[in-house]
Order: sequence, then C-alpha cells, then structure tokens
Amino acid sequence: MHISELTHPNQLHGLSIRQLEEISRQIREKHLETVAKSGGHLGPGLGVVELTVALYSTLDLDHDKVLWDVGHQAYPHKMLTGRYHRFHTLRQKDGIAGYLKRSENRFDHFGAGHASTSISAGLGMALARDAKGENFKVVSIIGDGALTGGMALEAINHAGHLPHTNLMVILNDNEMSISPNVGAISRYLNKVRLNPAVQNLADNLEEQFKHLPFFGDSLTPEMERVKEGMKRLAVPKVGAVIEELGFKYFGPIDGHNLEELIDTFKQAHKVQGPVFVHVATIKGKGYELAEKDQVGYHAQSPFNLATGKAIPSSKPKPPGYSKVFAHTLTTLAENNPKIIGITAAMATGTGLDKFQAKLPKQYIDVGIAEQHAVTLAAGLACEGMRPVVAIYSTFLQRGYDQIIHDVCIQNLPVFFCLDRAGIVGADGPTHQGMYDIAYLRCIPNLVIMAPKDEAELQRMVVTGVEYTEGAIAMRYPRGNGQGVPLMEEGWEALPIGKAEILRSGDDVLILGYGSMVYPALQAAEILSEHGVEATVINARFVKPLDTELILPLAKRIGKVVTLEEGCLMGGFGSAVLEAFSDNNVLVPVKRLGVPDILVDHAEPNESFASLGLTTPQIADQVLEAFFSENKTPVAVG
Amino acid sequence: MHISELTHPNQLHGLSIRQLEEISRQIREKHLETVAKSGGHLGPGLGVVELTVALYSTLDLDHDKVLWDVGHQAYPHKMLTGRYHRFHTLRQKDGIAGYLKRSENRFDHFGAGHASTSISAGLGMALARDAKGENFKVVSIIGDGALTGGMALEAINHAGHLPHTNLMVILNDNEMSISPNVGAISRYLNKVRLNPAVQNLADNLEEQFKHLPFFGDSLTPEMERVKEGMKRLAVPKVGAVIEELGFKYFGPIDGHNLEELIDTFKQAHKVQGPVFVHVATIKGKGYELAEKDQVGYHAQSPFNLATGKAIPSSKPKPPGYSKVFAHTLTTLAENNPKIIGITAAMATGTGLDKFQAKLPKQYIDVGIAEQHAVTLAAGLACEGMRPVVAIYSTFLQRGYDQIIHDVCIQNLPVFFCLDRAGIVGADGPTHQGMYDIAYLRCIPNLVIMAPKDEAELQRMVVTGVEYTEGAIAMRYPRGNGQGVPLMEEGWEALPIGKAEILRSGDDVLILGYGSMVYPALQAAEILSEHGVEATVINARFVKPLDTELILPLAKRIGKVVTLEEGCLMGGFGSAVLEAFSDNNVLVPVKRLGVPDILVDHAEPNESFASLGLTTPQIADQVLEAFFSENKTPVAVG
Repeated sequence: MHISELTHPNQLHGLSIRQLEEISRQIREKHLETVAKSGGHLGPGLGVVELTVALYSTLDLDHDKVLWDVGHQAYPHKMLTGRYHRFHTLRQKDGIAGYLKRSENRFDHFGAGHASTSISAGLGMALARDAKGENFKVVSIIGDGALTGGMALEAINHAGHLPHTNLMVILNDNEMSISPNVGAISRYLNKVRLNPAVQNLADNLEEQFKHLPFFGDSLTPEMERVKEGMKRLAVPKVGAVIEELGFKYFGPIDGHNLEELIDTFKQAHKVQGPVFVHVATIKGKGYELAEKDQVGYHAQSPFNLATGKAIPSSKPKPPGYSKVFAHTLTTLAENNPKIIGITAAMATGTGLDKFQAKLPKQYIDVGIAEQHAVTLAAGLACEGMRPVVAIYSTFLQRGYDQIIHDVCIQNLPVFFCLDRAGIVGADGPTHQGMYDIAYLRCIPNLVIMAPKDEAELQRMVVTGVEYTEGAIAMRYPRGNGQGVPLMEEGWEALPIGKAEILRSGDDVLILGYGSMVYPALQAAEILSEHGVEATVINARFVKPLDTELILPLAKRIGKVVTLEEGCLMGGFGSAVLEAFSDNNVLVPVKRLGVPDILVDHAEPNESFASLGLTTPQIADQVLEAFFSENKTPVAVG
Repeated sequence: MHISELTHPNQLHGLSIRQLEEISRQIREKHLETVAKSGGHLGPGLGVVELTVALYSTLDLDHDKVLWDVGHQAYPHKMLTGRYHRFHTLRQKDGIAGYLKRSENRFDHFGAGHASTSISAGLGMALARDAKGENFKVVSIIGDGALTGGMALEAINHAGHLPHTNLMVILNDNEMSISPNVGAISRYLNKVRLNPAVQNLADNLEEQFKHLPFFGDSLTPEMERVKEGMKRLAVPKVGAVIEELGFKYFGPIDGHNLEELIDTFKQAHKVQGPVFVHVATIKGKGYELAEKDQVGYHAQSPFNLATGKAIPSSKPKPPGYSKVFAHTLTTLAENNPKIIGITAAMATGTGLDKFQAKLPKQYIDVGIAEQHAVTLAAGLACEGMRPVVAIYSTFLQRGYDQIIHDVCIQNLPVFFCLDRAGIVGADGPTHQGMYDIAYLRCIPNLVIMAPKDEAELQRMVVTGVEYTEGAIAMRYPRGNGQGVPLMEEGWEALPIGKAEILRSGDDVLILGYGSMVYPALQAAEILSEHGVEATVINARFVKPLDTELILPLAKRIGKVVTLEEGCLMGGFGSAVLEAFSDNNVLVPVKRLGVPDILVDHAEPNESFASLGLTTPQIADQVLEAFFSENKTPVAVG
C-alpha cells in the first residue's frame, strides 16, 4: 500500500511492520520534498514519523482523539488523515495550514500554535467523555521543550490527581524545543542518560557502532547524539518523578522503532488512569543535514534538498528587523553590562542567538516560559539591571498578567521588544501579532512605540534601554526592513511621546504607526496624483500620543486617516479617537487596520491585499471616504 | 523587648528564643486585634509568625532580600519592618496596604497580590546580584497553593538549572491555598505524611496527645490536623522530587518551633546554589477558631474576637453578585448536566463552593492555575459540554493567551464569568478589575456583556449558558447587588447585542455599562433638577455594541456621555467612539471611567469619589462638559 491510497488513518490497522516502515519512508519523502519546495517546519515532523504511524495503528481514530502540542510536528499526521494529495499546498493561501486547525479536518481535534496546551485540552476532553459516559481514548503529545511551559505543569498536576480519568500523555523527547532546552526538567531527562550504569552500556555500544557500515570507524561529534539516543533506550525506568505525580510511566522507548512503539502503546492503552509514555526521538530524523543542525533545520524557507542550502531569493533583501534589533542591542550591551537580553526559547527567531554568542553572561534563555521571563525581568530591574525581554507579540500574551502585575504596577524599567507584531504570513491565526497595541495600551506606566523602519528601530532600541522611568515596549514586524542606511553606533534616543511630520499637505492628515508609515507615504503619492495632498505623520508612540503635534493639524486639515498593522478594536486608531474626543476635536476619522476577524495563513502580501492594506487600496479607501462625489456628507449631531 | 520598640528587623539579632517567642506572641495579638477590627487576611499571617521571626533573626535585612508570594501573609513582616505603630490603618485609605508594596517600605522588595511570582522575581534579583558582583541573600517564600501555579514551576525549572546561583525558596506548607489544594503536587506532599512508617509513629503520638492537658482524652476531627502536622515532622527527607530538580532540600520542619526554624535556616544559608526549605505551618495558628475553619478565616470582614462571628452590618444588604451568580448557575446546572463550573482556587470568592456542594460532579477546581483552567474549558467545549469559567477579572489576566489562542481562535463556546470587575476596594492595585473590557474587546469571536443589577445578571447567566456560537464573557462587580427582586427560575436569555432604553430625554444621551447603569440613572435625576433631561441606555453588551439603537439617538440628541467602571483606554467608551467614527456620527462624547492611573486601596466609595465617579460628581461633569455657560464651543474641524 502506498500512502497516497490511504483515505482514513484506520487503514493502518493490520499492516505489517514492513508495510508501516514503507509508509513511514513515504511520509518522510513527501515531507522533505514539500518543505524543501515551499518552506515550513522540517525537523519536528521528521522526528515523529514512526511515533505517528505506530500510535495511529493502535487507535481507532473514528473515536479516539489525538492532540498535538504546538502542531508544527503534525505534518505526518496531516498526511495520514486524508491530506496527502493536497500536502503540496502547505502553508499557502487556501492550502493546508502549517498547524492543526479544527476547521480544516475532523482529525485535528485541537488547534495549536503556541506550546504547552495539549495536556489541558486533552484532560478537558477526557473529563467530558467520562461525564457523558462515553468511551474513547485521548492522547496528548507534547515535546520536552513544551513541557517546561507552566501550563503543561499545571495540567500534569491536575491530571495526576485524577486516578480514574484515562489520559495518555506522550512525551516526544528530542532534547530540543527550537533551540536546545534549558532548565532542570530537561537536565533531569539528561541525567538519566548520563548515569554510570548507563554509561558502561553506552561505551560498549560505542564499540558496536564502529562496526556498523553507516558509521565506519570514526565517531564524529554528530554521532554522539545517536549514541546518546541509544543510551536512553537501555534505561529501564526513569519516570520516578512522573510516577510521584500520579502517572503510570513507560519509557524511554526508541521513537524510531515501530515494533517497540506499537508494543508500548498497546500496553499503555490498557492502563487505567493517567499514563505517560516517554519516547526518545531524533529531530530531523532521516535527513542527515537536519539531524546534525537541529536548530538550523527546525523551520525552513525553501531549500535545495541535496545541499540543504536555502534557495537564494531573486534579489538581495534589506536586513530583517530581528537582525537589526539583535545587532543594535549587542552593540549597546557590549558597553553596558547592565543590559540583559532575555528570550523564551526563541533565540534564533528574535536574533538573540547573536547576542548570546558575543555576550553569554548577559543573556538568559528561560525556555518556553513567558510568564517567568517577564517576572524574572522585573526582579532584575529591581536591582538596577536593564532587562530587555524579546518575545513575539503573540507569545507575549502568555506573560500578560506579569506585565501588568509585576512590571507596570511597580513601575519597573523593563524593555519589552515585540517581534513579529502584525501580519506574520504562513504561520496563520495562532501567530498573528494583532492584539499587542490594544492589550498593552490599557496598562498604566507603560510607554509604547513602533519604528517606521530599521534605522528608527535602532534609535528606539537606544530609547528603550535609556528610558528608566518605567516600562517601555516596542513592536516591530516580521521580515525585512525598508533598506534604509543603518548606523554602526552613535544612535540617539528619541524624545518620549514625540511624533514627526514626514510630508505636508492640506487635504488630509494621515497618521501612520510603525510598519504602516511607509505605506502611508506611498499612498500619499498616489493621492497626490489625484490632486489630494496629504500630511503624513510618523506617530512613533501610541502611548503617550503626541497630541501637541497631532491635534492642531487635525483641526486645521479636518480629515484624518489612521493606519496600523494590528487590530482596530482598541488599537492605534482608537487611541487617536480617544485623544480627539477628550480634546473636543470633532473631525471625521477613517481608521485602517485589521478588522475584528482572524487572518488566515497566506503570503503576507496576500494578507495585506485581503485586508485592503496595500498601498493602492489605502489610497482608494481615503479617496472613497473623503473625496468621492457620491459620498454622503458626514452627519454631525 | 516589646515589638513596639523595634524600629529595624535586625534588632531581632541576638535575642533569645524566649524573647523571640514573646515577640511572636505580640505579633499574633496585634494581628488578631487589627483584623478583627478592620478586616483583612487572618489565617495566612497567623500561620507564618514564627517563620518570619526566625528567618529575620538569621538575615541581615540591610542587605538581604525577602520576597513574600501573594503578600497576604506578610502582616508579621510589616510589623517587624517599622509599621507596627501604623498597623491599625491596615487596608484603609492612605493606610498600610494589605499586600506588599515597594513604594510603601524599603523592606517590601517585591509587590504581589497574585500568586506564584516570588521565585521568578527572586531569581531575577539573585542573577542581578551575581552580575554586579554583590553579595546578599535572596529568599522567596511561597505557599503550597501558589506552588501549583505554572509560573512557579517555570521558575523552579530555571533556578534548579543554575547550581552557582544562591537562592533560598521557603515552602510555607499549610496544605491550603484559600481552599484546600488540589492536584498531584499537594497530594505528593500529603503522601509523605501517610506512609506506613510515619503512620506508626503517628499512632504512638496519638497516645501521647491524649495525655496532654489541652487535648484531654478526646481526639476531635479538628485535632487530626495537628496530628498530621506532627507526623510530617517525623519524616527525615521528603524532597526527592525537589532534589531531582536541582535544589538542596531541607525539611519538613515545624513552622511553629523557633529553635528548629532558626537552626535550619542557618544551615540552609550555608548552601551554595538553590536551596529549598520545606516548612510545615498551620494556617490560623494561635486562634483556635481559625485553625478549625481555615477556609472561613482566610480573610475576614470585621469580627468579634471572642466568638469569631462577623460583626453584623448596621442594615441588611442585598445579596452579593457572586452569590446570585452561583445560585443561578447551580439552578441551571441541576437541569443541565453539561454545565461544568470551573474555578481556579477561588471556590468561596466566586460562590462556586455552593455549586460544588450541590453538584460535585459538575464542578472542577484546578487550583491556582488560570492558564490550565481556560484551556481545560476549551477541551470540554470541544466535546459539547458547557464550561463556565468563573475567575476574577484581575486573575483572568493569567489566562489571556489561552482565551485568545485556545478558545476564541477556535470559536469554542466557553462562558467566562469575571467576578470583581471594576473597583475592589481594600485589596488595592493588584486586585483592581480595571482592564478586562479593553483586553477582551480586541479578541475576535467573543461576546462581552455586563449586567446593570443582580436580576439582569441572572438573565445573563442564562444567556451565557445558552449561547453556543462562540465564546462569551460577563463582568460583574465586587459586592452587593442593587436590591432588586430576583427570580427563583424561569429566567429568559437576552438577545445578543441588544441594549435597552431606561429613561428618555432630549438633552443628553448617557450610555451606561454594567455597574454604572444605576449611577447613570441617578445622575440623570440630578440633571433633571438642573433642567437637563437625559436619555439613559443600559448598553448590556460592549461587543457587539447595539449601534442600531445607539447611533440614531446619538445623532438626534447630539451630546453623549459614556460611563464605565473600568479603564478608559480601550474600554467601553472607546468602543462607542469607534462605532461613532466608523458610522460617521460626529458628536461630542464625554467618557467617564477610570483614567490611566493605578487605583490605590481604599473603601470602594472612597475610590469612586477620588475618580469623580459618585453620582453627584457624574452629574457635575456632565453639566460642566455640555451645559456650562463658560464652556468654549466644541471645535469642529
């Protein structure tokens, strides 16, 4: 049987190990081929091919439910649940999503994009099942990285307390989240692999390795990983802690041995109450380059399968915001030992890996633990350090209470750097950075800013580091800058709460925030072609808003447009309306941004187009709102 | 030495055990006397008197730093750090705060009001200390209830990984948070107390107890607790799990034995790296009534010290919102087994203890674990249950990402009930429910409502339970209802997004939201005395806003006031401005609510007055804004 003939995962039932191995090979092939072509998550899915195939061969998926934590490792799941033929549309507009999605497929039982949720959701389903007197299995699969997230531990604490609630948790232990894990839990898992009895066994294995054709007689550093994997298999019982917390523990088992996986799952399914299966996998398994560089191949833009090299884009691009951010912060931190760069398991994504390389003592990766990251920063700030917390807009939602309760109520100088603020493209709704302006703006003692380009970002990094009167936040978008000249040093801080005028015109006032300032300028040029001259403001700060500059202009010009890459409800435009209302400035305002909907995965320019936020669309909307002849006059009460 | 002579905690150094016992007695006396008179947290502080005295006698508090988790157990700390003489002003306006507060006292090193933050903050201070090359001790004191919060576990995971960072964590283990703890961690702590070897010892102790004068020959159920406490002391080593996570473990030790406490702290201070001291305390220690009823005496309104009975208020009050909420939900749930009531360790506060008593199978207390509570509810909703998550407005900030990512993105029907929304009074800034309208309003797929009184709350409970198209949230204030008649059954759901007109007048349109609807009506009466006739709307829903009703009225009347008990930035008034702007309704709007400041602890009516939100103040502000002769005309662009 070829995987392309599979229409339902239950068709795996009764296949021989040989056949399942063949299916696994086919999944891996398609997985590699697709990600090489269109980009996506590479290592995570390759690591769980056998885990997925084995698990599904032991479940009745018409009734049983599997929840994949984060979901970026669920490509094999997608291929086994009727999406093989459409798999080439991965992460493209109207194509297969990169994460699980309930609305996409009935086997996607719980959507996810953020880590550490699967045990909570799985336990909810298990409790519902028991309340309804139904009978099906619930399996939550979580990575060792996600296990460090507080809510996963909250859920384990709860589930371990319910001896009569059947729930299987599978730990996909690949010793990595996106970057190598930190923390005592992962060290505990490692410790098992390093205990002396196991060490002896491993040393014997090393001898055996050398006789295997694949390894030859050299044991390269890369092979150490494989050896470590083998060691783990020799340990009969490592789950003392897990058992103390109320789970029956199985493992660790070889995550690439179908027979062992199937036997263990079958045994574990018979257990009453919460059960924990510890599976040792190798991230990137089956693609040598990815096994060797697990951080580099976690997620990929399109690449050449043979060389592993990214396919260069047709034209050179300006540096990305993350890169400029990290470079600038590193330069400042080299001369200021008080600066501490903090990330929550996103060293590469935020660019802080470069910071770490130069200044390891000023760098902290707390793992997937945004709550802890924020309050740790508050503690550092109490002692006069300058903590810089770099977390994606969407992930900072995890630390929301800590921003209010631990930082802002105490008026502590913590600098929040929100990467991926706005439209993120292929990652879709779970990763869109849409809400930060609204969810931060309501908090007292917080300055909020956004740069129009990467050069201004440099100045805002200085501004954030130098501002010590309280907390300050900066949002910046995913992707590349505008290609403006950058400075290597000597940046000047911006005055807090001061906007700038970029263009003058008497017909309409356009207030752009952050990434929408350049589109505002470009739209102004189109408007000029239609005889409409715009004043364009780079607002820089949404809080405090530069009312001194904006209000007189608004009164004089009488027509205002606000432009932001974020939700309209409570966002930048809303702040402008509040300022106008509070100051008795009654002028018509057209707010452009993201309406109250979820934005699906697509290329960023496709998302912008669907939201009416491309430059020509912006110009059209301004004309339509204020300069159309059919326009009914504005109602004034 | 009498405690009143203590001006610095270092004066405890060198005192004899006898003297420290005497100080402890004096603290307990003042503690009881003050809380009996003015109300406050009773049990938590009484439980840590000896812990505080012992610890402080081993520290140099000019340099060492102590962080109290939550802070409601820090009354002894306050008395020892120069606040004994002002302690009678506890929780009163301009008096001593009920929680720690950096701005109040230099020994309050980290403010808190929400649980589980102290290890993160302490670790931040410890890392800062080491980075600066300084040398002082950092001690984080956390309760066993707070230990179930995910961020505490994130912090332990991090601290346990840093063998060279000195940090002491003291577990104040009283087997309780506010209600008895749930979960595997607390069961693990219990298990130790119940193992057979310990059981034998305990049985012997039971014999000995009977000969003590205090116990006589009867061992009442209440005495079981004392016996359990004794058992714990006999266990030499229970910290296997803690040690696996990288901490050096001491305990459990008797939290009321000064000598043992001091010896252990001295020993533990010598340890390099993270150290964990497990202290067994009795909540309410020294006040028999509080020891017996630890839930009831967690926090108190003023009471008679001899009888323990609350001092009845001068006049009978209408039932509180929490009570009406819980009663209504219980009635509905009795006929609908799909309704599941969920709380995060606030059974009594939310009123769900009554729900539990009647419907234990439909009730879940997850412990201090708001993140897990929300996603657990999402899992339940996937399976067709009707989860009702009752969490205070301020604590729901902890589950913010889960509301967005697990509930609303997936459009799951979860009903959020936000108790204590708005001004909370004596608990102060950490507990004010100010931000929920703003932080929820920006999320797609969420209906948001607030009742004007307890009868409408009943209808909204039905509305929330019956609404299955997505998520829905209801906010309601702390305290008593309006005294309107209630129904025992037969409530009708409200139409989603529909407001109601309560009063008509042509001069001004007042839009009230939730708890501010009655003040709006009362202000309208005052305005009427000044010849100004107001239309008053009960908005009911901030999302979706009833634009169909509101817009034509706004256009016709031409002057609008919005009234809300929450932050003005991004709140209800902001939603009204957005609706007006989007629909080209240009009318002046006066938004009344909580400005962009922190609201300190005080009586609620004092807070309202300081914010200009009493009824006469509202009327004055409306007159001033729209009907004052000196009023400059509204500028129209």
